[in-house]
Amino acid sequence: MAEPMRSISILGATGSIGASTLDLIRRNRDAWRVVALTANGNVADLASLAREFGAEVAVCADAGKLAALREALAGSGIAAAAGEGALVEAASRPADITVASIVGCAGLAPTMAAIAQGRTVALANKEALVSAGEVMTALVAKHGTTLLPMDSEHNAIFQCLAGDKPRDVRWITLTASGGPFRDWTLEQLAEATPAQAVKHPNWSMGAKISVDSATMFNKGLEFIEAYHLFPVGLERLRIIVHPQSIVHSMVEYFDGSTLAQLGPSDMRVPIASCLAWPNRMATPLADTLDLAAIGSLTFRATDETRFPATRLARDAARSGGGIPAVLNAANEVAVAAFLAGRIGFTRIAAMVEEVLSRYGPPPPACLEEVLAVDAQARVVATRVLEAL
Amino acid sequence: MAEPMRSISILGATGSIGASTLDLIRRNRDAWRVVALTANGNVADLASLAREFGAEVAVCADAGKLAALREALAGSGIAAAAGEGALVEAASRPADITVASIVGCAGLAPTMAAIAQGRTVALANKEALVSAGEVMTALVAKHGTTLLPMDSEHNAIFQCLAGDKPRDVRWITLTASGGPFRDWTLEQLAEATPAQAVKHPNWSMGAKISVDSATMFNKGLEFIEAYHLFPVGLERLRIIVHPQSIVHSMVEYFDGSTLAQLGPSDMRVPIASCLAWPNRMATPLADTLDLAAIGSLTFRATDETRFPATRLARDAARSGGGIPAVLNAANEVAVAAFLAGRIGFTRIAAMVEEVLSRYGPPPPACLEEVLAVDAQARVVATRVLEAL
Repeated sequence: MAEPMRSISILGATGSIGASTLDLIRRNRDAWRVVALTANGNVADLASLAREFGAEVAVCADAGKLAALREALAGSGIAAAAGEGALVEAASRPADITVASIVGCAGLAPTMAAIAQGRTVALANKEALVSAGEVMTALVAKHGTTLLPMDSEHNAIFQCLAGDKPRDVRWITLTASGGPFRDWTLEQLAEATPAQAVKHPNWSMGAKISVDSATMFNKGLEFIEAYHLFPVGLERLRIIVHPQSIVHSMVEYFDGSTLAQLGPSDMRVPIASCLAWPNRMATPLADTLDLAAIGSLTFRATDETRFPATRLARDAARSGGGIPAVLNAANEVAVAAFLAGRIGFTRIAAMVEEVLSRYGPPPPACLEEVLAVDAQARVVATRVLEAL
Repeated sequence: MAEPMRSISILGATGSIGASTLDLIRRNRDAWRVVALTANGNVADLASLAREFGAEVAVCADAGKLAALREALAGSGIAAAAGEGALVEAASRPADITVASIVGCAGLAPTMAAIAQGRTVALANKEALVSAGEVMTALVAKHGTTLLPMDSEHNAIFQCLAGDKPRDVRWITLTASGGPFRDWTLEQLAEATPAQAVKHPNWSMGAKISVDSATMFNKGLEFIEAYHLFPVGLERLRIIVHPQSIVHSMVEYFDGSTLAQLGPSDMRVPIASCLAWPNRMATPLADTLDLAAIGSLTFRATDETRFPATRLARDAARSGGGIPAVLNAANEVAVAAFLAGRIGFTRIAAMVEEVLSRYGPPPPACLEEVLAVDAQARVVATRVLEAL
């Protein structure tokens, strides 16, 4: 790359997105200057990455690990910090692009701080946008921030929309693999175990997002995310099951043209798209897309009887305000309970629906109110869980 | 459409592309002013269309039909003209966009005249670009003309390239239906009849292009056309068989992203893309692309043993100069002979290969030399035919 050097911060550097992002940067070291790297509690990896990339600052979300982080960075000249306030401070440090890849609602405040820089934020944290909704999109508009979607589906839509206008769109179609249980009956689903749920057929991902893929809450959250990212209206957004996960999403225009983005199940592709945008950069993917070898791409409609998550998400998006934040928080609590063996697989969606029926907050007006809705939804969800 | 009125000429107004173009214009009458309409010999339809759309001039390629055309337009105030010179004169009349849809090499001179206006030419005549090659692309460059590909495959590639650069392309993949004989053995192919060949599985087209689809010479010509339209180099162009003809073509970038354009087998989609470019316009297509109903998109490699046309085309593109013009002319003569029952189906490619081995002209430097190569190739082809 003969591009000028750019500065980058990665919120959630030790996770899967962070690792893929740093893999690409490692191959183009001269093109990037690393500002801030953050992690939740993995001090060893965080310090190692901060040293390798010569970061300005390394931040651990867990305030109790500050001493360990300082020790791990001793003599490096890299600033160490810890705690939620430090995360927000790090996200506020000037960077040309900030990769927001902290999983869950914990990433919301630092993501908002990065947006307030008015530069470019590559968003891999779908929960943040789902929960904050209009509060986040208003901040993006206020600061003129460029929001690049890093999720493979939303990045696909972003690429398919290049040069076209939302008003020319007839349909945005999110593809869903259907997850590891797509062919299971309701009876089988009731018996699904955490070990079965985290084995995703196409993507290698963390436990929480793998369960979300199995319940289709992942697609539900993506649906709400797409609703905020691409202003075409709920009635022009749909989901289709595509088991091979080769077509990452599609945009149909009202002239009858559909543009689709296809690619391998490798997050480095959408990450590279964000890092290089509006240009493109090489990725170390060995193989070209060989559709003749793949042979067949299949598609089918979603089944919201077996997988109610997308129905709940669509309804939550329609309600707007704080309701998607309630859905997201309730789902996080339910998934944790499922992974801990406390509830069965089909109880996840049932629990989310129950929480939504019990708690309907007024629309939050600012980040603090979003966080309050999130916190209260977790309280309600925990109560529902304990009553089971 | 609230766009300003634009002027348009249609070279080949009574053919299938012309009819689809006029169908779209009919639905947006206030947006268009029709300058010239031309036809080969269908005076009745030409005069009727010229009257309906209030054309400035109607031109018949067949000089012998001038009197009939004048009579059919009597009292309309529409100028009538006929003959090859009149076609070129009509194509030179100022028009914001010219649709070049005369089938075969006959469309070359008027297409070059339209290009020389330095405005926008929507190219549906693949033979013209195949034959003229660098002579045409040099004229496009000289006048700064915008060349919009109207063939569904090339229009698909054009849409997939929106905002991206040829240097970022890893592969351009043209899809081919494989034609009505895609599953036939060589023995069966030798017995294929004209009636069987003109029944295309997905598209409704004229006889010549239907035979070209059955032999895969259509895809071979498109391959050469793509080579001229999209400067990525021969080694980055490939063909894949996709029987459903839903994916019209694809572009893979070197970051691992592939963009594909999908749509119905309806020429109004790429035509609308050209007419509205860089915006989009509504088309009267009733249905959205329903991949769940379609169920499966399949892909396989091409078989150049049974269908040598794409190999011959790739070799001709590599040779460059006048060789693609020889291939195109030889194919036109061979297809006519096949349709007349004079040669068998598999003799079409054999005859083209024979003509290519007998006639290797030096690169033509101008339109006249291209036409001379074309004429001489037809002489050689006719000799080959008579020797059979």
